[in-house]
Amino acid sequence: MQIQLLLTGNEVMAGDTIDSNSAAIAEYLGEQGWRIYRKVTVGDELDLLCQEIEAQSAAADVLIINGGLGPTIDDMTAEALAEVTGRPLEQHGEALKRLTLWCERLGLTLNKANLKQTILPKNCDLIRNATGSAEGMALEHNNCLILATPGVPRELREMMASEIIPMLKARFGSDFVETRRLAVFGEGESTLQQGIDDLISDWPANIELGFRASMPLVEVKLTARGKNLSQQLDACEAQMKQFLGDAFIGHAPVTLAEATLSLYRAQGKTLTTAESCTGGAIAAALTEVAGASDTFLGGWVCYSNAMKQAQLGVPEQTIAADGAVSEAVARAMLSGALQRSGADAGVAVTGIAGPNGGTEDKPVGSVWLAWGTAEDMQAEFLVVNLGRKRFQNLVTAIGIDLLRRHSGGLERLPGFAARHLQAGKISR
Amino acid sequence: MQIQLLLTGNEVMAGDTIDSNSAAIAEYLGEQGWRIYRKVTVGDELDLLCQEIEAQSAAADVLIINGGLGPTIDDMTAEALAEVTGRPLEQHGEALKRLTLWCERLGLTLNKANLKQTILPKNCDLIRNATGSAEGMALEHNNCLILATPGVPRELREMMASEIIPMLKARFGSDFVETRRLAVFGEGESTLQQGIDDLISDWPANIELGFRASMPLVEVKLTARGKNLSQQLDACEAQMKQFLGDAFIGHAPVTLAEATLSLYRAQGKTLTTAESCTGGAIAAALTEVAGASDTFLGGWVCYSNAMKQAQLGVPEQTIAADGAVSEAVARAMLSGALQRSGADAGVAVTGIAGPNGGTEDKPVGSVWLAWGTAEDMQAEFLVVNLGRKRFQNLVTAIGIDLLRRHSGGLERLPGFAARHLQAGKISR
Repeated sequence: MQIQLLLTGNEVMAGDTIDSNSAAIAEYLGEQGWRIYRKVTVGDELDLLCQEIEAQSAAADVLIINGGLGPTIDDMTAEALAEVTGRPLEQHGEALKRLTLWCERLGLTLNKANLKQTILPKNCDLIRNATGSAEGMALEHNNCLILATPGVPRELREMMASEIIPMLKARFGSDFVETRRLAVFGEGESTLQQGIDDLISDWPANIELGFRASMPLVEVKLTARGKNLSQQLDACEAQMKQFLGDAFIGHAPVTLAEATLSLYRAQGKTLTTAESCTGGAIAAALTEVAGASDTFLGGWVCYSNAMKQAQLGVPEQTIAADGAVSEAVARAMLSGALQRSGADAGVAVTGIAGPNGGTEDKPVGSVWLAWGTAEDMQAEFLVVNLGRKRFQNLVTAIGIDLLRRHSGGLERLPGFAARHLQAGKISR
Repeated sequence: MQIQLLLTGNEVMAGDTIDSNSAAIAEYLGEQGWRIYRKVTVGDELDLLCQEIEAQSAAADVLIINGGLGPTIDDMTAEALAEVTGRPLEQHGEALKRLTLWCERLGLTLNKANLKQTILPKNCDLIRNATGSAEGMALEHNNCLILATPGVPRELREMMASEIIPMLKARFGSDFVETRRLAVFGEGESTLQQGIDDLISDWPANIELGFRASMPLVEVKLTARGKNLSQQLDACEAQMKQFLGDAFIGHAPVTLAEATLSLYRAQGKTLTTAESCTGGAIAAALTEVAGASDTFLGGWVCYSNAMKQAQLGVPEQTIAADGAVSEAVARAMLSGALQRSGADAGVAVTGIAGPNGGTEDKPVGSVWLAWGTAEDMQAEFLVVNLGRKRFQNLVTAIGIDLLRRHSGGLERLPGFAARHLQAGKISR
């Protein structure tokens, strides 16, 4: 089955919107073992749209069109489809019925702009949009199944999952595909690739290996195409996990915070945070996880030295003697947070996010982390020289990973941080 | 000038990578008044690449190819260009020289994989890559200028700015384009569009109006194409600002946190935060801004009731009587934070992010915010029914915007929140 994709939208062509829809479509198709052969993107121009629909439908078995179903004059997918297939545009009875119900449900008045969304190529089939007003369309042309889908990402995803994939499976049958997605922290894509090349020489040809960066994690994806490959896939996954070691966080989609909270929750332990340079981002990442409240009690953002002293009990003379970015201050911050919150474990960070504030001794990107419990407290110094925003993101991830490692009895530091202590700075 | 774009990469076709490169290319071109007419994306297949290069170059004046310049066997842009243009592939002396220097500079050994990057179509011109090893290529075919660019986003951006835009300007001359980008918070795109349609009837034809969602802000973009339009653009900007009122945050790129910190900094006032359901995200957004430390002293993440009591002095009986999500608790949290931090102003939030924890009285999405100073403290209740993650993001933005409004003497609430108090929930 040859699938092509046609995207339409001036905002995509102008660079005002980054297109995440085609990646979403590719993912849903990929789960069935289907690939997109070719994708064309054009602005909202009727002639150009018609030209592409004609050419792509002549070459493909399935053409998925995304965008151009909205109520404004820029939206011209229905018009283009009518012109290319030679069907007149007319009010579609079923579409009007659905839109009327949709408006009633939301307490909206059906206006003229919305009514445009019911003027469709004669006799086209509708594809149900459960979450929006723009119904999809299905019709045949050039012996190709053309599917028109909405540009709103949430609506598109819903339609792909509940309508289009079942429709394509019913018509073309599904390939046999099984995927395992392993989330990894502490090693970059190229290091992983190199390590795998060096260490795993007998990788089977029918298990495809892929990487996907989803900062701060990397996803290692194993895909088997064909029947009866589950056992082989199990073996490959086991081999890969062995190679990844403690860089393996869990099966994607998982976040570092989820994996870490699960470990502490399982042990009935509670957590706290004391942040300076990350400014609350570690706490925010933990509370992003639903149900975090049973494990994460809360934390402090002590940006000023006065707050470090007053709220966490960091001694003034420690700050004066060692500086705010120092092992003693990081440890004192964590001690204060553990004591005051009553939490079992926690992490503290104090550093220089930049762009200003660096010294020769402690350049921008310097950070002291302290983590663990009152009885087993660890501390480490890193220089993360990546610019303020990426510094904050990476230090947040490292801080959470250190908690994960501490609880799980793993290697003390993630791979790149351990290497960094020998080699200099983190500036991948 | 007709410009087309050809993207290559299996990872893009498989949905593993979201393509941000074409948006970057479109932006750089757009600054000169140029648009991309049509974009084609294909996987790493030689035949398909050759076919597209041939077809696109026949139609366009400029064809920008992105991707396929790397060292692996998947990278076949040079091979495709050689085949299409009928030039033999051979070692490019200048490319070898540059790569050798590159490796020397980084202390790397020139390996076989990298050497592949110097085997290029005979006599093609190089385009300097200042930040990576993959040099770009320029050559003519079908009376079309073909430019091959690297897939690494940072390298691409650098090459667009310092090499390709000057090259295109020298050859085709630049159009006259001037842009104003207004950042807006508190109104959605469709509300803005409707309001503009209703209120601004005499919008001039040569000032283009566009929107760009960059959550939580919306950007309103005014573009003038042509000479001597600055004055007219000034007038349009003034008219638009008047329409936007206090929803106007500043000129993009600006964040809510930047705009808010600037206001308080200008008045010599300091800020603090007391967060429950946003879990540190408000503090993190403030500290993302370089130089935040002069204005933001720090804050508390008091997720548990015990921490609300112990750290912020919220009375136990207040929590027992009114519940943790209540006006009294929000106000007590803010009072405690102001007192303990010594900050002049601040914001406190306590709510139910979900998915669990809702009651009939206080459904998931309920949130009490308190903001302002000890002398002038405001509080409000909202229901933001958008799912945990979007709840946290939007409440974070609202919390910061309330500080901005309070300091600036603006309307008390952003537009959609004010309407929400009449109409029910925020669930856009």
